[in-house]
Amino acid sequence: MSTDSIQDYLDQHQERFMTELIEFLKIPSVSTAPEHAEDVQRCAEWVKSHLIGIGIDKVEVHPTPGHPIVYAEHCTQPDKPTVLLYGHYDVQPPEPLDEWVTPPFEPDVRDGKIFARGATDDKGQVFAHFKGLEALLKTTGELPVNVKIVLEGEEEVGSVNLENWINAHVDMLTCDSVVISDSSMFAPGLPSITYGLRGLMYCEVSVTGPGHDLHSGMYGGAVPNPINALATMIGKLTDESGKILVDGFYDNIEPLTEEERAQFASLPHTDEGFLKEVNGVGLHGEDGFTTLERIWARPTLDCNGIYGGFTGEGAKTVIPSKAHTKISCRLVPGQNSADIGKKMEAYLRKIAPDYVKVDFHLHHGGEPIVVNLDNPTVQAAQRALKQAWDKDAVAIRSGGSIPVVATFGDILNAPVVLIGLGLADDRLHSPNEKFDVTNFYHGITTSAYFYSELAK
Amino acid sequence: MSTDSIQDYLDQHQERFMTELIEFLKIPSVSTAPEHAEDVQRCAEWVKSHLIGIGIDKVEVHPTPGHPIVYAEHCTQPDKPTVLLYGHYDVQPPEPLDEWVTPPFEPDVRDGKIFARGATDDKGQVFAHFKGLEALLKTTGELPVNVKIVLEGEEEVGSVNLENWINAHVDMLTCDSVVISDSSMFAPGLPSITYGLRGLMYCEVSVTGPGHDLHSGMYGGAVPNPINALATMIGKLTDESGKILVDGFYDNIEPLTEEERAQFASLPHTDEGFLKEVNGVGLHGEDGFTTLERIWARPTLDCNGIYGGFTGEGAKTVIPSKAHTKISCRLVPGQNSADIGKKMEAYLRKIAPDYVKVDFHLHHGGEPIVVNLDNPTVQAAQRALKQAWDKDAVAIRSGGSIPVVATFGDILNAPVVLIGLGLADDRLHSPNEKFDVTNFYHGITTSAYFYSELAK
Repeated sequence: MSTDSIQDYLDQHQERFMTELIEFLKIPSVSTAPEHAEDVQRCAEWVKSHLIGIGIDKVEVHPTPGHPIVYAEHCTQPDKPTVLLYGHYDVQPPEPLDEWVTPPFEPDVRDGKIFARGATDDKGQVFAHFKGLEALLKTTGELPVNVKIVLEGEEEVGSVNLENWINAHVDMLTCDSVVISDSSMFAPGLPSITYGLRGLMYCEVSVTGPGHDLHSGMYGGAVPNPINALATMIGKLTDESGKILVDGFYDNIEPLTEEERAQFASLPHTDEGFLKEVNGVGLHGEDGFTTLERIWARPTLDCNGIYGGFTGEGAKTVIPSKAHTKISCRLVPGQNSADIGKKMEAYLRKIAPDYVKVDFHLHHGGEPIVVNLDNPTVQAAQRALKQAWDKDAVAIRSGGSIPVVATFGDILNAPVVLIGLGLADDRLHSPNEKFDVTNFYHGITTSAYFYSELAK
Repeated sequence: MSTDSIQDYLDQHQERFMTELIEFLKIPSVSTAPEHAEDVQRCAEWVKSHLIGIGIDKVEVHPTPGHPIVYAEHCTQPDKPTVLLYGHYDVQPPEPLDEWVTPPFEPDVRDGKIFARGATDDKGQVFAHFKGLEALLKTTGELPVNVKIVLEGEEEVGSVNLENWINAHVDMLTCDSVVISDSSMFAPGLPSITYGLRGLMYCEVSVTGPGHDLHSGMYGGAVPNPINALATMIGKLTDESGKILVDGFYDNIEPLTEEERAQFASLPHTDEGFLKEVNGVGLHGEDGFTTLERIWARPTLDCNGIYGGFTGEGAKTVIPSKAHTKISCRLVPGQNSADIGKKMEAYLRKIAPDYVKVDFHLHHGGEPIVVNLDNPTVQAAQRALKQAWDKDAVAIRSGGSIPVVATFGDILNAPVVLIGLGLADDRLHSPNEKFDVTNFYHGITTSAYFYSELAK
């Protein structure tokens, strides 16, 4: 098998691939809408048939308390690694319908793009993998590595049944690495591999002053105000240089290597463009780090919500009994969600004045994940992307925390690599979602090359 | 006329007075309830008839866009001062009805108290004045001073039409002082005169970070968070000693005199009792001042509300575009609401980081009022209270800002003195509102003595 023979196969079948993708996209598998429950089920069955059709050995539709999970495997290479492909066949609701140029479930190819709900999120990206696998099977009669496929139907509703299902099938799902194509390239034409995600600590803090709401005239000046106290505490969580002051917060953080910093710096990013993107007055972050370093490789502390007292129209003179905030920290390698939660609580209790009561509640968190760039899966992805796009792939990180990645990483103990095939302007979750045809076809070659490279 | 003859008259008619008060309290003049609109009107007419009945010269019911105002005057002493009595004949809604021991509009006298909606707020206190005036008229054939009476029917719905009405009748309302009995004594059996109220500056502050809500993973660390920024700004408004840091905030404040501090200190107050009353963990206020000084005679800065970002159940990782707070300052003599508003805005803009946008909105404020204790009206009230209660009256202040007092003070340019006849446990606005019978009768003598003393 050579890259040439794969490319030949793809060239010959390109048109059919698009026709099949359109068929896939026509199924309105809107997981959140009860009226589409049958469509979701039908979509799972369609995926099953399709995978059987391209020659995958074993394909099953697993029921869950919600929508089914399609599980497939083709493990014929006992001496080769096993890779698990995760994706989802459900889609976001298409509303508002009147903003679509062409209907969301009548896919339309124009200007080199295919427009439809799910075009890039995630049907198009998943289907590129299906076609890559087909090309390998049809040109060589085999797959170069062992492949397991998990396609869920509830990603857009929080993957509510996935973790239980994975836990119930750990042996079946055993693998050496996980690959996911459900994200974007850093820029058009710039092949990208995401090898790191930040973790998350999320907590709620309540401060109580008086035992009940008081009149600010009758009591103001002599009774602690929980809003003022909480705000003052929040003010003490960070300093003006953007440093987080929670004791021990930065302990054991693995510093960015000079190679990574150089790699980040080489990417086509400008702060002017970033500021325009967030439509803000100015940027602000930790001193000594660039914007990409701040987003991808430094921990954060953000209040995600705050409330207390009178929040309606007009004026009410109350000293509330309580004030509340929700605080989250994105975490980087070396940090641990539970540990940071403990340190946050200890610090908050330390800085709280003794005339208020502090309640602290920790939400479910997640751990940071960074796959070593020396990892064979990352390297195979890099070589595949270079072959497909004729350009060196950039290794990027994401500042987010994708729960399913942590779920796979934690339970299966396998490195997870994200090969995003979409673009930033694909309008996922919005009207006129699209997938560039170039990205679809390059995605297919990327996929075929990736599995081939993994075997080396 | 002597205090003895007044006392005799009261002793003779005590029973009838109670019967009449019960009649007054039976009218369900709930100003906020449209279904009671006729009752409110009927109550105004009842007051009119009653005032005519006791011999007041001129009594009118003035319509307003809402409920009517009863206006009366008895000005037969051209060489004597004119005092304006303000009160209200409307009452709070009685709900929840099932918590009343006896129905709210079927007044019941038991255990030395009369239970009914409006018993103390404000029908009972107003009626004590009516009976005081009656005693004077019946025993001497005249009133010792000129008396004007303004009884509104919308106090419980924000006195929405009062200011316009006063402005339209400034000449008619000209007076030397205003007396109001719509508050409480400092403690049972301790006659009290309130000679000071704090003013109010109330503003709203909004801080904008990014132009729209952002994902805290994708952007966190590089984009200013408006909640953190606002909280940090709030933290800089005060220091740990309770001092307010707004530039020029304390300029020109008239210091408390040693006499006043001694007077406050002599009152039956304990911080233990106060902490129990507010049901808190601890007290907190400006260093160097007692609780009563902090509440009555020192300016404050309280956040009355704060909101921004995600405030629902659970966790959402958002960097909101905006965060908001409502801040009020109680003001003391020497301070001016508009001036403090300007200083607050200037300080907030000074401490705001340059990477956020600050919007500032000033609400309607109010000026602090302190009547000089040497004022003849205060002194007359003190002498009257001593005669009625056989105990020295205490001069107290209130930390609140009563809009109607500012309205009278501002427009009529007359000192306002509050002679509270109620008690702290009268449960105004709650079920089982009551007025102590002792307070009612002592209130009548207080009133009669007060007008007599004013003439001296």
